[in-house]
Amino acid sequence: MKKIVVIGGVAAGLKAAAKARRCDPEAGITVLERGEIISYGACGLPYYVGGDVHDIEDLMKTPVGIVRGPGYFKNVKDIVVLTQTEATVIDRQAKTVKVKKLATGETDSIPYDQLVIATGASAIKPRLAGVELGNIYTLWHPDDARAIQQGLGKGTFKRAVIIGAGLVGMEMAEALTKRQLEVTVVEMKEQLFPAFLDPEIAGIAAKYAAEKGIKLLTGEKVERFIGETDVTAVETDKRTIPADLVVLAMGAHPNAKLAEDAGLTVGATGAIVVDDEMRTSDPDIFAGGDCVENVNIISGQKVFAPMGSTANKHGRVIGENLCGGHAKFKGILNTVVVKLHGLTVGKTGLSEQDAKQLGYEYITAMVAGPDKIHYMPGAKLITIKLIAEAKTGKVLGMQAVGEGEVAKRVDVVAAVLTLGGTIDDLFDIDLSYAPPYNSPIDNVAVAANAVMNKLAGKLKGISSLAAKEKMTAEQTVFLDVRTPDECKQIRLAGCPNIKYIPLGQLRSRLTELNKDDEIVAFCKISLRGYEAEGILEGAGFENVKVMEGGVAAWPFSCEKG
Amino acid sequence: MKKIVVIGGVAAGLKAAAKARRCDPEAGITVLERGEIISYGACGLPYYVGGDVHDIEDLMKTPVGIVRGPGYFKNVKDIVVLTQTEATVIDRQAKTVKVKKLATGETDSIPYDQLVIATGASAIKPRLAGVELGNIYTLWHPDDARAIQQGLGKGTFKRAVIIGAGLVGMEMAEALTKRQLEVTVVEMKEQLFPAFLDPEIAGIAAKYAAEKGIKLLTGEKVERFIGETDVTAVETDKRTIPADLVVLAMGAHPNAKLAEDAGLTVGATGAIVVDDEMRTSDPDIFAGGDCVENVNIISGQKVFAPMGSTANKHGRVIGENLCGGHAKFKGILNTVVVKLHGLTVGKTGLSEQDAKQLGYEYITAMVAGPDKIHYMPGAKLITIKLIAEAKTGKVLGMQAVGEGEVAKRVDVVAAVLTLGGTIDDLFDIDLSYAPPYNSPIDNVAVAANAVMNKLAGKLKGISSLAAKEKMTAEQTVFLDVRTPDECKQIRLAGCPNIKYIPLGQLRSRLTELNKDDEIVAFCKISLRGYEAEGILEGAGFENVKVMEGGVAAWPFSCEKG
Repeated sequence: MKKIVVIGGVAAGLKAAAKARRCDPEAGITVLERGEIISYGACGLPYYVGGDVHDIEDLMKTPVGIVRGPGYFKNVKDIVVLTQTEATVIDRQAKTVKVKKLATGETDSIPYDQLVIATGASAIKPRLAGVELGNIYTLWHPDDARAIQQGLGKGTFKRAVIIGAGLVGMEMAEALTKRQLEVTVVEMKEQLFPAFLDPEIAGIAAKYAAEKGIKLLTGEKVERFIGETDVTAVETDKRTIPADLVVLAMGAHPNAKLAEDAGLTVGATGAIVVDDEMRTSDPDIFAGGDCVENVNIISGQKVFAPMGSTANKHGRVIGENLCGGHAKFKGILNTVVVKLHGLTVGKTGLSEQDAKQLGYEYITAMVAGPDKIHYMPGAKLITIKLIAEAKTGKVLGMQAVGEGEVAKRVDVVAAVLTLGGTIDDLFDIDLSYAPPYNSPIDNVAVAANAVMNKLAGKLKGISSLAAKEKMTAEQTVFLDVRTPDECKQIRLAGCPNIKYIPLGQLRSRLTELNKDDEIVAFCKISLRGYEAEGILEGAGFENVKVMEGGVAAWPFSCEKG
Repeated sequence: MKKIVVIGGVAAGLKAAAKARRCDPEAGITVLERGEIISYGACGLPYYVGGDVHDIEDLMKTPVGIVRGPGYFKNVKDIVVLTQTEATVIDRQAKTVKVKKLATGETDSIPYDQLVIATGASAIKPRLAGVELGNIYTLWHPDDARAIQQGLGKGTFKRAVIIGAGLVGMEMAEALTKRQLEVTVVEMKEQLFPAFLDPEIAGIAAKYAAEKGIKLLTGEKVERFIGETDVTAVETDKRTIPADLVVLAMGAHPNAKLAEDAGLTVGATGAIVVDDEMRTSDPDIFAGGDCVENVNIISGQKVFAPMGSTANKHGRVIGENLCGGHAKFKGILNTVVVKLHGLTVGKTGLSEQDAKQLGYEYITAMVAGPDKIHYMPGAKLITIKLIAEAKTGKVLGMQAVGEGEVAKRVDVVAAVLTLGGTIDDLFDIDLSYAPPYNSPIDNVAVAANAVMNKLAGKLKGISSLAAKEKMTAEQTVFLDVRTPDECKQIRLAGCPNIKYIPLGQLRSRLTELNKDDEIVAFCKISLRGYEAEGILEGAGFENVKVMEGGVAAWPFSCEKG
């Protein structure tokens, strides 16, 4: 009887064990878990804190309310799960795992024929003065969430400071504003979601966050935590921020020490190196989940990108291969989606910053528009930025943000990226259309079309960031072609050289513009801005640009009313 | 100056004209439209009748409220639009279009260098006695919707009969039930949405429609309409149904006569034949929109599939090629999405019926599950059926139905189909994951996984339809592995040979089952049904099948409480 041992009882480990059981009804399968609980949905923790999930036990249950505990795994899958059992040493010669029973201190040695390392990752805790004070939490384990929830219940938390404006940080910012706390997010880098968004998309999300009462301090570094027993303030390089609760959301590092100590190869990312069959440098040892490196299939680079969805796929591949299969895990796209109150932010593939760093010759386009046809109730704006290789038209990546349906568009582009498709392919997809769901030309097709128009030289775009820098240039005129009604409601702030000419009047008012000026045309979403470019170029203007995304995607301040 | 003439002022025609203007600021562009209005969103008409869209004018306006009338096209795009101007003859020798001004009866002859035929399609009106009675409408033009709306306003419509259970028919069924009418849908074929759904998926939607008060009569043929001035009843081959309002939703036929009379090639579908650059058999004449044939890129077959999204893509390609471009339209996937109250039904690529007819060796899998992780509020069930080529694993098509997010999954599969991807590719896509949006393994990946498991011989499935036929077979035992609580709430009706053994007890209660019997295992969504198969097969049972989709996707009656 083959002995399979799995270290780690959350996503990848349990999935691998279950899959292996399916292939091999005879094998002895043992899962070692350091913690008290297994198989919990860590991604759900912010939603427990925010109140969407009422019972934290739900994160550990099957959809029909059965706790996925050791009993469940024994009865249903004939898998032995040992909790509070820490794997301390992997002895590859003897093919044993040394374990320590955390409750009793006992040690034991468990033999394996095949081993799976699924030790996950841990939240980064900075080495700063005061970091051990009370009410400073990470949000990695149900215990963290329970502790925060208890504090919230007591009503003693009024002001929260979150360190890090990444996924967990902003999910917690949503959760804590929902719980009526005053929330400040301190981010060392210059923008929201610095790990995956380009600044003009991040700017849109940051503007929204501010409207929801989230105070975002970027380019600011935490220096120490102040307090006696519990934290009372956070000191940054710029100010002191009072705080009753601090959430450290500075990312994670892979739990690779056990593997490294056993002599298994660990990569530059600090995570365990595996091949495309999820094997480590020892052919009898697999690894998966948050403790391993992944390949980004667009860049070819090795990345550390812990994600529950990836962990589950790893588990499936490992399970197959434990039984002699040759399933492959091809890699990831660093796809991300995150909810921020009513806003969704998503990304797949490369950002423009990534593409630049990797030396691609690329082209981008950013378009804004309603997520379904404008006459349907509930149509909401989304902004999409596409990045493609200039020579081949191959799609490299996409970002999207808005109150409308963003995830669908991200997933469509993820499919195109997986299959190496081009901008033309993306435009061609016969996407489902009906008025309650989208427009005859879906937002992703509009974005693809904009890239095609740019490649053909028909659309000359300028990003909101570049336009902002030209605002005070003398030779640049901003041309707002919206209707007077629209302009009355909202206008770009601080724009001295601006002309308001509604699109329908442009052909007859061309003399009001000067052919020597650079003209930045725009409207609400810059579809009319694009029409304006056509009219102006048709009339011999040679220096016309369309401000991509228009007023809708303008990340800076506006004048209203 | 080049003269471009476009016949038809709705989607494809206007798009082609606008795109051509963009490439060629000099060309004279004239659009001829028989009707009084142009550029209206016909797809929105059911939503006007149903009350979602309050003002029918909104269907003819830009998002900022400007009517897309002749003035708009003149001012913004320098395009001349002539309404109430019917093209009567295309003289290809003289390169002229003869037109008749419908208001005055005057005729004229308009010369062209390049012509675009975008004459659309018309609703089928059956040649049945009484079809000309009052209050019998198609829903093709805003005038139809206005007339229905007027009748609804007067309160004289109480009972509506809709002929045809296709897209328009069911959208109108939703609209009229929303307006408190008693709605009966009569469909000649044996199921709901016969043109694109397999029966077990159609059955789920039909069950839902019945819950919403829509009476669906399938396999029933309308024979005549009864009434003096206005319709009072519909007579079918089975009964007489009282009716104050009848909607004919029997599909459409292409308006190809003008092209046919001009000697242009028309296909077996009755629609105009075009090449992949949207050229007709005359190189100076393009055609696009609802009047042309499309190629289904999976089957390679020519189809007539009028769709607003396709028409817009046609227009773009024609516009490019009018200016000497060589843009190509690669074809369609017959993708469909339709809302039926809270339910969404979608399909892309081939159905199983299509695959069978085309002689494919295929494999299918049907899975049900929540559209986001079960602990999140608002998670709703969706059922997905995937069809793949057995030998290659190439995805052939997908259908989905449910109250959850269906359109996203349809669009992801449409992307995979466009790029010729396999089931493995579909599983591999790094789809965006976060608890508010989906599960770590998205529903489409679960479906792909089920197909992979079937291909590997690990999952032996049986469809709900096939299971139903075995319900009374003596040697077949239905094994419901749900919890007692779940079984108390809802059970399959009329199932004499059923065993209730919760999954957690199955390993210890194997003696209650007989190895000679065929066992059909299932649960709510048949994930536990699949676990049961594994346990039973591990224990030597050789004739076990999983009922795909479980109770959630059971299209037949259930006992409750």
